[in-house]
Amino acid sequence: MRMYDIIAKKRDGGELAKNEIDFFIKGYLNGEVADYQISALLMAIYLNGMNAEETANLTLSMAQSGEMLDLSSISGIKVDKHSTGGVGDKTSFIISPIVASLGVKVAKMSGRGLGHTGGTTDKLQSIPGMRVSLDRSEFLKIVREVGICLISQSNNLVPADKMIYALRDVTATVDCLPLIASSIMSKKIAAGSDCILLDVKTGSGAFTKTVDDAIKLAKFMVEIGENAGRKTVALITDMDRPLGRAIGNSLEIIEACETLKGNGPKDLTDICVELAANMLYFTECESIDACKDLVKKAILDGSAFEKLKEMINAQGGDVAVLEDSEKFEKSKVKYDVIASESGFVTAMNTEKIGIASVILGAGRATKDSQIDYSAGIILTKKSGDFVNKGEKFATLFSASDELCKTAEKIIFEATKLSSTPPIARPYIHARVVKNGKSIEVLNYTG
Amino acid sequence: MRMYDIIAKKRDGGELAKNEIDFFIKGYLNGEVADYQISALLMAIYLNGMNAEETANLTLSMAQSGEMLDLSSISGIKVDKHSTGGVGDKTSFIISPIVASLGVKVAKMSGRGLGHTGGTTDKLQSIPGMRVSLDRSEFLKIVREVGICLISQSNNLVPADKMIYALRDVTATVDCLPLIASSIMSKKIAAGSDCILLDVKTGSGAFTKTVDDAIKLAKFMVEIGENAGRKTVALITDMDRPLGRAIGNSLEIIEACETLKGNGPKDLTDICVELAANMLYFTECESIDACKDLVKKAILDGSAFEKLKEMINAQGGDVAVLEDSEKFEKSKVKYDVIASESGFVTAMNTEKIGIASVILGAGRATKDSQIDYSAGIILTKKSGDFVNKGEKFATLFSASDELCKTAEKIIFEATKLSSTPPIARPYIHARVVKNGKSIEVLNYTG
Repeated sequence: MRMYDIIAKKRDGGELAKNEIDFFIKGYLNGEVADYQISALLMAIYLNGMNAEETANLTLSMAQSGEMLDLSSISGIKVDKHSTGGVGDKTSFIISPIVASLGVKVAKMSGRGLGHTGGTTDKLQSIPGMRVSLDRSEFLKIVREVGICLISQSNNLVPADKMIYALRDVTATVDCLPLIASSIMSKKIAAGSDCILLDVKTGSGAFTKTVDDAIKLAKFMVEIGENAGRKTVALITDMDRPLGRAIGNSLEIIEACETLKGNGPKDLTDICVELAANMLYFTECESIDACKDLVKKAILDGSAFEKLKEMINAQGGDVAVLEDSEKFEKSKVKYDVIASESGFVTAMNTEKIGIASVILGAGRATKDSQIDYSAGIILTKKSGDFVNKGEKFATLFSASDELCKTAEKIIFEATKLSSTPPIARPYIHARVVKNGKSIEVLNYTG
Repeated sequence: MRMYDIIAKKRDGGELAKNEIDFFIKGYLNGEVADYQISALLMAIYLNGMNAEETANLTLSMAQSGEMLDLSSISGIKVDKHSTGGVGDKTSFIISPIVASLGVKVAKMSGRGLGHTGGTTDKLQSIPGMRVSLDRSEFLKIVREVGICLISQSNNLVPADKMIYALRDVTATVDCLPLIASSIMSKKIAAGSDCILLDVKTGSGAFTKTVDDAIKLAKFMVEIGENAGRKTVALITDMDRPLGRAIGNSLEIIEACETLKGNGPKDLTDICVELAANMLYFTECESIDACKDLVKKAILDGSAFEKLKEMINAQGGDVAVLEDSEKFEKSKVKYDVIASESGFVTAMNTEKIGIASVILGAGRATKDSQIDYSAGIILTKKSGDFVNKGEKFATLFSASDELCKTAEKIIFEATKLSSTPPIARPYIHARVVKNGKSIEVLNYTG
């Protein structure tokens, strides 16, 4: 077998066989296939696509390129969750403890933030003392004993994805559904859980801007997960406005705690109840509605919040900041953004809001940038709200007035006001499941 | 400007601007653009194409990546010629001395053979003592004094083409018209002649298998040449059967000499007269027919053959082998291929015949292979001929019986016999010229 022929086949619109996909993944890892050959193949894949079977084979080949986590020492059903990324997305800190408090095991590895979206482990690290790099045995011990552990992704996991992603990033081949699907799913499959809930975001703050594209991506991923023997369900959730009101690391942890205490913003609370119910539905729960009732109860009786504190404590974090948010380190500057005109907020370019929070210090401009954990945005007003001229629109937290002024400008540019209210978008657009042999898209009624 | 954006533009079907093309060629040469980025761009070009303007800009940018030859010290009109490559193509040794004997200056640099086609300089090197690597001043001196010099391509000429071709060769992006056209024309433009005659081959032994594809390639190249201020004409010539009867290095030199003496095979002679007449037509010759008369006279009166010997002598070659072909080194084995059935030869897969000659030792299997200058094939029968069972079909020359038997098998596989004669193909299919602003394809009547 020659790499040349594999490239030529995909170039001519052919379908790559499993042994051809294994050949180029293994060859790339061991240095027998050059990066300039892989990048030519990636461009051919970008332009000519891959069908579901090819994408599934690529995913498995990548998953097997490194460590495959063995969770068999943990009793019960292990559920993983992945979000395609959004602005203000703190659902992991809410739904994982909810389902863990109801007996589901959550062994979750997350990536760092890059671009306009924040990273799960960055947010956790805003908690003093919190350790997110644990060795394998400690990770499994915490999952066994506490029922939940959230850590950063191991370097041994899916090395092929790291190498290929680095190439895609500089050869304009990132934005390609089969490559995105295989990148995400290879990591989920290698991470070893029995069931995978996918939160595919759609709207101005998401990678997939339209619901159609989000559904396409979700179908690819559900097919891959199910073919690999994992129960997989995707929810298409809205990211046309930031999720909740807090954007930034410690700000999002505080909002997650408030939500677990029953005091969260409505959009965030509703989406988390749906996501958690769908995670729980992988177990023997009889219906989604029954799952929702259990989820709501776990919030009301405080057991979900207790579970979060238990996990933070097990991972070395200072639980005091969760009980009293005033104990979090404060940003140097607190800056009020005041509305300069009145009207309904009809649209927010959510990606731009994310960029504003990165500028404030909440994210990384480059791979090596330092994060300011206290920096970020609290949106007093969001899409659908009415704002009066002179009223507070948002509060910014940062190290300097200058950064706040730059971010304020971007927030104004990202926001549209109008005299009439916008058409409301649903929080959940669809649910994608495998039913027998076919992938079904269900219009979620909430 | 970022390489990423240039790749993304071509990926999305956009048209690259001159400064973008200059950026990636310069960047690749100075190491600021990585080979994996160039290969992704090449695949995007392969799949999304390049228009005439982009191809012309790419050609000029590549031509200017190294030495641009200055032929101004040579008086008169300098004419260059390029063939897209075929099996048994020894036209350079025939038409160049013909036109040189008529006062046209020919300063020609050629590449080595690779694949199923032989290289011009390899063939010349079958002549004892022949030097094809001359320094610039000796090269120009011979052109000035003798009127003709054929050498191998300098390493300083179009370094960007060498780098890009090496990448194309391993990333399945060779077979792409704008990339082929720019590769050929960048070298012709850098080589400095005023006029360029292109011999675009078509048929089973050529890169462009169909006349349509050959015309497409010819149009690209004529447009590029004319835009760069060179008079450029292309003839589409037949390569559906080997040209002449000899394939192999010294065998082809012998056949070229016979043709210059007026004893060549009809197809080779006719094509050479056309090509030479078209080269001469760049000068003040009044019509193609008048040029043909001059060409035929130069063969008949022996002045063309004298010119070849003069050039060989100036480049250190032993002219005695040209006068008496028995003086060429002989191959160890001479092997007759005998027809096992009777019939008209209706088709020859000419690429396969070329591969058979490489196996015999006449070409390079890899870049570093040694050539056996005496090896090759004399075809006693070709497409259109009738062969009787038991009659000689071809003679093979090689270092061993084994190689001959392998080649014989390939030749039989490549040849189709039938009870009815094939429809005759013309030797020249079309002539492509620029007339005012448009590229015209003229049906050549011969």
